[in-house]
Amino acid sequence: MTAPNGTVTVRRLKDLATLVSLSKRRGFVFQSSEVYGGLNSCWDYGPLGSAMKYNVKRIWWNAMTRRPNMCGIDAAILMHPMVWKASGHVDGFSDPLVDCKDCKTRFRADNTDSYINKKQCPTCGGKNLSEPRQFNLMFKTHMGPVEDQGSVIYLRPETAQGHYVNFQNCQVTTRYKIPFGIAAIGKSFRNEITPGNFIFRTREFEQMEMQFFVKPGTDEKWFNDWKEIRWSFYKKYGMNMANLRFHPHGPTELAHYAKAAEDVQYLFPMGWSELEGVHNRSDFDLTQHSKFSGKNLEYFDEASKEKYIPYVIETAVGCDRLFLAFMCDAYREEVTLDEKGQEDVRVVLGLHPEISPVKVAVLPLSKKDELCNLGEKLRDQLAEDFEVQYDESASIGKRYRRQDEIGTPYCVTVDFDTLNDQAVTVRHRDTMKQDRVAISALNEYVRKGMKESF
Amino acid sequence: MTAPNGTVTVRRLKDLATLVSLSKRRGFVFQSSEVYGGLNSCWDYGPLGSAMKYNVKRIWWNAMTRRPNMCGIDAAILMHPMVWKASGHVDGFSDPLVDCKDCKTRFRADNTDSYINKKQCPTCGGKNLSEPRQFNLMFKTHMGPVEDQGSVIYLRPETAQGHYVNFQNCQVTTRYKIPFGIAAIGKSFRNEITPGNFIFRTREFEQMEMQFFVKPGTDEKWFNDWKEIRWSFYKKYGMNMANLRFHPHGPTELAHYAKAAEDVQYLFPMGWSELEGVHNRSDFDLTQHSKFSGKNLEYFDEASKEKYIPYVIETAVGCDRLFLAFMCDAYREEVTLDEKGQEDVRVVLGLHPEISPVKVAVLPLSKKDELCNLGEKLRDQLAEDFEVQYDESASIGKRYRRQDEIGTPYCVTVDFDTLNDQAVTVRHRDTMKQDRVAISALNEYVRKGMKESF
Repeated sequence: MTAPNGTVTVRRLKDLATLVSLSKRRGFVFQSSEVYGGLNSCWDYGPLGSAMKYNVKRIWWNAMTRRPNMCGIDAAILMHPMVWKASGHVDGFSDPLVDCKDCKTRFRADNTDSYINKKQCPTCGGKNLSEPRQFNLMFKTHMGPVEDQGSVIYLRPETAQGHYVNFQNCQVTTRYKIPFGIAAIGKSFRNEITPGNFIFRTREFEQMEMQFFVKPGTDEKWFNDWKEIRWSFYKKYGMNMANLRFHPHGPTELAHYAKAAEDVQYLFPMGWSELEGVHNRSDFDLTQHSKFSGKNLEYFDEASKEKYIPYVIETAVGCDRLFLAFMCDAYREEVTLDEKGQEDVRVVLGLHPEISPVKVAVLPLSKKDELCNLGEKLRDQLAEDFEVQYDESASIGKRYRRQDEIGTPYCVTVDFDTLNDQAVTVRHRDTMKQDRVAISALNEYVRKGMKESF
Repeated sequence: MTAPNGTVTVRRLKDLATLVSLSKRRGFVFQSSEVYGGLNSCWDYGPLGSAMKYNVKRIWWNAMTRRPNMCGIDAAILMHPMVWKASGHVDGFSDPLVDCKDCKTRFRADNTDSYINKKQCPTCGGKNLSEPRQFNLMFKTHMGPVEDQGSVIYLRPETAQGHYVNFQNCQVTTRYKIPFGIAAIGKSFRNEITPGNFIFRTREFEQMEMQFFVKPGTDEKWFNDWKEIRWSFYKKYGMNMANLRFHPHGPTELAHYAKAAEDVQYLFPMGWSELEGVHNRSDFDLTQHSKFSGKNLEYFDEASKEKYIPYVIETAVGCDRLFLAFMCDAYREEVTLDEKGQEDVRVVLGLHPEISPVKVAVLPLSKKDELCNLGEKLRDQLAEDFEVQYDESASIGKRYRRQDEIGTPYCVTVDFDTLNDQAVTVRHRDTMKQDRVAISALNEYVRKGMKESF
C-alpha cells in the first residue's frame, strides 16, 4: 500500500512510544532522575522540551491575560489547610483502595478488573482482602519544625482555589467590574494510584486554569462563550480540529461543585482523552470559602445595586497534556520511494512557529572559517529576538532533517555567495520553499513570517 | 530640609513596609490564603505581581538560554530520594533546634540570643531545655498509597540537582562540547525555621539556577567570567549599581561542595543581603552522583582525548528576591512643594520597561463615547503585542499617577484631535515628555522605545 515513485505519502503518529523515543533522543522529555532508574510518573523537560513548554505557557498566558477584564495571578502551592476543608478536598478527594492481606498489594477497588469480577487480588489472586477504604489523593507534608497534626499542610491538587481566595483582592486592585477573570499557571500534585501514558497523567503536573466571575443568571451564556473562546485557541495554533471534540458530562459524571461541564477531548494515540475542562462551578466555591473563613465574599453590583456571590465559569487545561497534544498533532512522516522502492522518511514536527522550540537554524554550507564565522555572527543577530540553533556538522540535507524533526520553521544557509551579496537562503519547513533574504532584513522576515504564513 | 518651590527632591525607599503596603494596595503581592488569616511566609503574586514576575523570569531565561552553548531544562520538583542522599542534603541540610520542655517552644540554637547568652527559652525564660538536635530543612512527603519509609520523597530544596542528573542527557541531545551550560527556573522548598522580610526568605520560593560545565583547570577563569556576565545583567536592566556588591565567602562560609563562592549582595532596606550566588562547585556533585548511581558521568573530550568529570560554575538567583530588589531599586518619591509649602508626592516605580507589568496605559481624555470606543480599539491594537491597561475613570492627572506608581513606561491619551488626525499623545513615565504619534505607528513606537530609550 505505498504510493508510486516520487509522490509523498503522509503517515500520522501511530503510538505514544514513537513520541517517547523522539522526546528522549532529541531532548524534549527525559525520565526524571533517570540515572537512579527514574521516579515513577515523573518527567523532566529537556533542552527542547523546556523551550517548547515555555512557549505553550506563553501563548496561553497571553491569550488569557491580554483580553479585556482579565488578569493573572501566581499563587503559592502551599495554602492554608482550611482551603482544602472548604473546597471539599480533605473529605472528598479520594479513591477507594483495597489491601491484600496475603501479599500486601494495595489496589484501586473501582478499576481493577480481577477485583470487580472475582473479588480477588490482582497480584497473588488471593481472596483475603480488606474492605475498600478511601485514600486521599492530596500529598501531605508538615510546615515548620514540629511534625504533628497542627502542622499538616497539603500540596495543592489544583490551582483554582488560589483564584477564589484571591477573588476580592484581585477585584479591588484591578477595579474590574463583574464579569472579569483570573488566570494562573502553576504546578499541582495528585497522588494518583495509576499514573501513566507518558506525560498525560502524572503525579506532579502543571495546570493552566482560568476562573471567570459572572452575575448569576448570565452563567449559561458565559459557559458557551468560553467554550467558543477556547475552541478558537486550538484553531489559531494550528491543531487539526478533527482531533478535537467536546464531551458534555452526563449527570453521573458531574463533580459536586459543577452545574455543567464539558471536556475538550483530544484524539491521543490511546484514544479520546480529556485535554481541557470547561466548567460552570456555580457559586459553590466562593460560598464555601465565605462559610469557612467567615468573610463576606459577596460582590456589590453598582449597576443593579445588588449584592451577590458570583458564579464561576472555569477553563482548566493541563499544560503537560496540551504539550503532548501539540506533539501528537504535529508529528508526521512524509514517505517517498526512491528508484529501488526504498522508503525515504522525512519526520516533521509541524508545530505552529510560536510553539516550536527553535525558530531558526543557522547552517553554514561548508566548514570553511569564513562561512562559520559569518554563521556565528548571524546566530547572535537572530538570538536577539529568537531561539536559534547553530549547526555546522554533517551534510546540509541531514541538518535540514534534524531541524524538521524538532519543528524548526526556518533554516538559514550561509553560502559563498553570502560573502558577496550579504544575503542568505531561508528554507521553509513545511513547503521546503527557499527564499533569498538580505541579512539586514532577516529578523524582520522571520518575525513577519511567523505571524503571517502559519 | 525641603527644596525651594518648584524643584524636585527625590526620596528613595525607606523601609520594606512601604513596599508591602504598595504591593497589597496595587496588586503586586498578597498574603497567601489571606481570607484564612494567611499562611506564615507564603505569598501570592497578584495581577501586577504575576505579570512582573513573569517578566523577571523571561529576561533571565532569555539572557541565559539564548547564549551560545546554553540550554534550558524544566525538571520535576519530585526527584528520586537517592538524589538527596548523594547531594548531601539528607545528612547535612539541617539547623540545630532546641525544645523547651516547659512551654514546648522549639527554636534555633544557633541564632536565638537568649539561648546563646543565657541558655534560656526565648518564650517562657525557662531553663528546662533539650540538647540541640539537627532538624532537616527538606519538606518530606509520601508518593503512592502506602505511607512507609520506602515511599518517602522530598520537595526539592534546590533546582541544581536536576541539572546534574540530566547532565548527560542534555549533553548528548544538544551535541554541545564542554564548556556548556544548563539553565532552569522552578520552585524549591525549604522548611526554614525563621522566614521573613516579606518575599525575601520564604519556605516556598522560585529559583533561577544555571550550571556551567567546564574542563578542570579552566574553572577559575569561568568563575570570573560568570561573575562579569551576571554583573552586566543587573546593569542592563537598570539597577543602581551602587546598591550591588560582590561578597566573597571566607573559608568558614564556604559550603561543603564549593571551591570558591561569591554572593551578589543587594542593599535592601534591611541591609546588604544575598541576591545571587556564583559558586565554583568543583566536581563534587557529578562525582557524588557517579558514586551513588553507579553510572559513569565522565565526559570524553575529543580535542584532548581525555576523560574527566567536569567542574561546575553555578549562578543561582532567587526569583522572588530579584523581584524584590527590582521593586526596591525602582521605587522613588518625587517631591515638589506647592505655593503653600505643601508636599506633592509623585510615586514612581522606575522599572526597566521589559520588567514593568504594564507597558502601555490607554487613557481617553473624557468619558465621551467616541473617545472611549476609540480607546478600547486602541487597547486591543496594543494588546496584540503588549500588556495594556485601559482606564477611563478619574482626572487625567490622577490616572497618570496611578500608572507611575506601578511603573508603566508609556501613557497614551486619546483626545478630540485624535478623531481628526488619527494620532495620540504618548507620555513618558520618567521624563514626562510628550510625543504625538500616529495610531498606525504606535505599536512600533512602543517596541522601539522599549529597546532604545532605557
